[in-house]
Amino acid sequence: MAEVGTRTADVMAAVRAKIAARALAPGDRLPSIRRFAATMGVSPSTVVEAYDRLAAEGLIRAQRGSGFYVSSHALPPLKLAEDGAPRARTVDPFWVSRQSLDADEAVPKPGCGWLPADWMPNEALRRAIRTLARGGDDMLSYYGNTRGSPVLRRLLLARFAEEGIEVAPDQLMLTSTGTQALDLVCRFMLRPGDTVLIDDPCYFNFQALLKAHQVKIVGVPYTPAGPDVAAFERLLEAERPRLYLTNSALHNPTGATLSPQIAHRVLNLAARHETTIVEDDIFADFEPEPSTRLAALDGLDRVVRIGSFSKTLSASVRCGYVAARADWIEGLVDLQVATNFGGPSPVSAELIAHVLAGGGYRKHMEELRRRLVRARRETADRLQRLGIEPWLSPRGGFYLWCTLPEGRDSTGVAQAAFAMGVVLAPGNVFSPSQGASRFMRFNVAHMADPRIDRVLATALAGD
Amino acid sequence: MAEVGTRTADVMAAVRAKIAARALAPGDRLPSIRRFAATMGVSPSTVVEAYDRLAAEGLIRAQRGSGFYVSSHALPPLKLAEDGAPRARTVDPFWVSRQSLDADEAVPKPGCGWLPADWMPNEALRRAIRTLARGGDDMLSYYGNTRGSPVLRRLLLARFAEEGIEVAPDQLMLTSTGTQALDLVCRFMLRPGDTVLIDDPCYFNFQALLKAHQVKIVGVPYTPAGPDVAAFERLLEAERPRLYLTNSALHNPTGATLSPQIAHRVLNLAARHETTIVEDDIFADFEPEPSTRLAALDGLDRVVRIGSFSKTLSASVRCGYVAARADWIEGLVDLQVATNFGGPSPVSAELIAHVLAGGGYRKHMEELRRRLVRARRETADRLQRLGIEPWLSPRGGFYLWCTLPEGRDSTGVAQAAFAMGVVLAPGNVFSPSQGASRFMRFNVAHMADPRIDRVLATALAGD
Repeated sequence: MAEVGTRTADVMAAVRAKIAARALAPGDRLPSIRRFAATMGVSPSTVVEAYDRLAAEGLIRAQRGSGFYVSSHALPPLKLAEDGAPRARTVDPFWVSRQSLDADEAVPKPGCGWLPADWMPNEALRRAIRTLARGGDDMLSYYGNTRGSPVLRRLLLARFAEEGIEVAPDQLMLTSTGTQALDLVCRFMLRPGDTVLIDDPCYFNFQALLKAHQVKIVGVPYTPAGPDVAAFERLLEAERPRLYLTNSALHNPTGATLSPQIAHRVLNLAARHETTIVEDDIFADFEPEPSTRLAALDGLDRVVRIGSFSKTLSASVRCGYVAARADWIEGLVDLQVATNFGGPSPVSAELIAHVLAGGGYRKHMEELRRRLVRARRETADRLQRLGIEPWLSPRGGFYLWCTLPEGRDSTGVAQAAFAMGVVLAPGNVFSPSQGASRFMRFNVAHMADPRIDRVLATALAGD
Repeated sequence: MAEVGTRTADVMAAVRAKIAARALAPGDRLPSIRRFAATMGVSPSTVVEAYDRLAAEGLIRAQRGSGFYVSSHALPPLKLAEDGAPRARTVDPFWVSRQSLDADEAVPKPGCGWLPADWMPNEALRRAIRTLARGGDDMLSYYGNTRGSPVLRRLLLARFAEEGIEVAPDQLMLTSTGTQALDLVCRFMLRPGDTVLIDDPCYFNFQALLKAHQVKIVGVPYTPAGPDVAAFERLLEAERPRLYLTNSALHNPTGATLSPQIAHRVLNLAARHETTIVEDDIFADFEPEPSTRLAALDGLDRVVRIGSFSKTLSASVRCGYVAARADWIEGLVDLQVATNFGGPSPVSAELIAHVLAGGGYRKHMEELRRRLVRARRETADRLQRLGIEPWLSPRGGFYLWCTLPEGRDSTGVAQAAFAMGVVLAPGNVFSPSQGASRFMRFNVAHMADPRIDRVLATALAGD
């Protein structure tokens, strides 16, 4: 937090000591600034600073125009109740999110969906932050325009073009987060009772989000080359889904890649049944080279592309985007103004643009891809020694979708591991049909802690 | 954007010149790094840097493992279509948001809802940003926990206590923005077809947001001391609203303050009819001293308090909050994970906590309040000379809610002013009943441009 000068800290300590010793009771007025400055042998501005900081902490309060008083309210406890103490809960699609987001930093989390902090481009981000501190007042103060930072949008258009996806400027908007991009699209396209097709298995939060929209969720079996086309066709006919939601590149949780043939057929079938496709491309930059994209084949006619920078750049500087038909973007912009009063924090968009524009990002991603190749191989070897087998060998990314030994239930294993202080991602949180009880998703970048193997072995033995 | 060294800039210029002169055509491979470094008399790393930057711009593209190629795609236009060119649109509740968010910086905006950049605590924010650049990797990389920064939550609890609002740690969560805080509460509490009571007039975006929830909107007439209690009671009986949504302190757009008597009666009536109250306290810090709060009277039983830091600290570093019953917060946290995968950017929360914890924030707000007293008086004088009369003299904040001369229609005046390059906020965008056609909301901090008086006089004469 803010640095405190020694003298200010002394004055603060003196006030705290008086309160602790009951020389000042709740409701008492503090000595005047001038008097206390004389007592402490410091300047009045030091006392002002100390009082202001104590007021910000809640120990004393400023009565506008009449001085400072000892707060009559008990201080909130230093440690907030829920921090560092994730509760046991039902293992539902929220389970992994809450356990991995709220777990203590020290807890090994092979179940989480992000890279360790020291794998991220932190130095590039620090440079961007220092540049921001030298920037103008407007950048630091204003809401930004309704589609988000023009600089970042321009960089994104260039990157899309590099992947072969033609996007016009009026087909792109920034959003607070990648998840919020999907949420906006769902609000725009769906009504309660509509049907949405998702992959089985798929990213667990898709189910949580769609439940918030009160729609019917139908799963299509996912193969190592994309959705099962025959099942896809049957479901389009039987269920008439409004949307099909998928990851094409490095599918979550399987790490599979959509083949060009399946992409082509999925798109034709969607066109025939007037189903819109939402393609979440959040893992795109982890591919060794771009694979087939539905958005590239379709040209954003029937496909909406969404994504964010949380996996490759920073999840602490949040920003997502939607690329879609211009008239849809127009509607989505209004919806984002209504529900969020605009898009991401402009400072976040500025930081991301700065990192992307700097030459270091591509180099960082190349190194990251090499590092992940090794980590996938090493993790697969370690898991195989425990009888845990990867379903396929992904061409990129940080997930391995694995089967546990015969007869093991991954929910039970995850609960047992959680009790031993390791957060895992059991298969059924990803499966709309609950048909993945023998599967488990492993994040190969979070396997450094040697305890993990022991905990896994114990959990597997005990289940 | 990122600083570019002279040599890197030279290499970039050389490549641009080759492309402009057609010495390199779309699809051509660029000279190898080693060869071009020799040609230019620079180090290979300078060429890498230059190529990476040109790739980030989209002029060339990196083919992983095989070198760099001139992009075969036309570059997106330098100026995005909509930037700086706000379109003429229907004057609906979106009108003011979009016109004021998307207008060029140079356009005077007495219709907007924020302070000029140079009225904001930018130096404190810059200090916070520099401290952030020195912070740890975890802070720069991770999603943060599901309720948002513990440091900022703790500071908020202390501030609430100072205002007499008792909030336990498990009754508070951070959100992406203040608007998103309201949106989450609406998603949690409302179903399509429910009825929501809002003030007439009220903040225009409340209507836009509620429309996105497909609820029935009913307005209660607002008096200089709060909602008209007799009308409030009749509407509770006739409409059985699920929610009543209001600003108590410095009501937007009127600047009125809720009286203790009305607060007490509103709360009792809401209790009798089982209506939940959402109190948006975004202007709280602009009051000379805290006035009666529904949340303080009620103790967060029937009242949900929401707010943000966009008006007093920065709208570019976005963060909001919800304080409510602990069991509701629990549900809201899950909903925010599902729809946004967590709360505000952790870096945003960190920056805000840093500014609030520093002693300078209170001083800044005191100065700001003094400055606004003057600005309100001067603006009232200028407007009165044009026959525009403030409805009341607010005790704080930056809005004046005014009546135009007899027979004038504020929508027409706003459209005429917009054609002359001034963004105004006509009364009916705030009025669910469309009964405020003679009213206009003025932001006293955006009246510096002397053209405004001339434009107003012309628009009034022409209407």
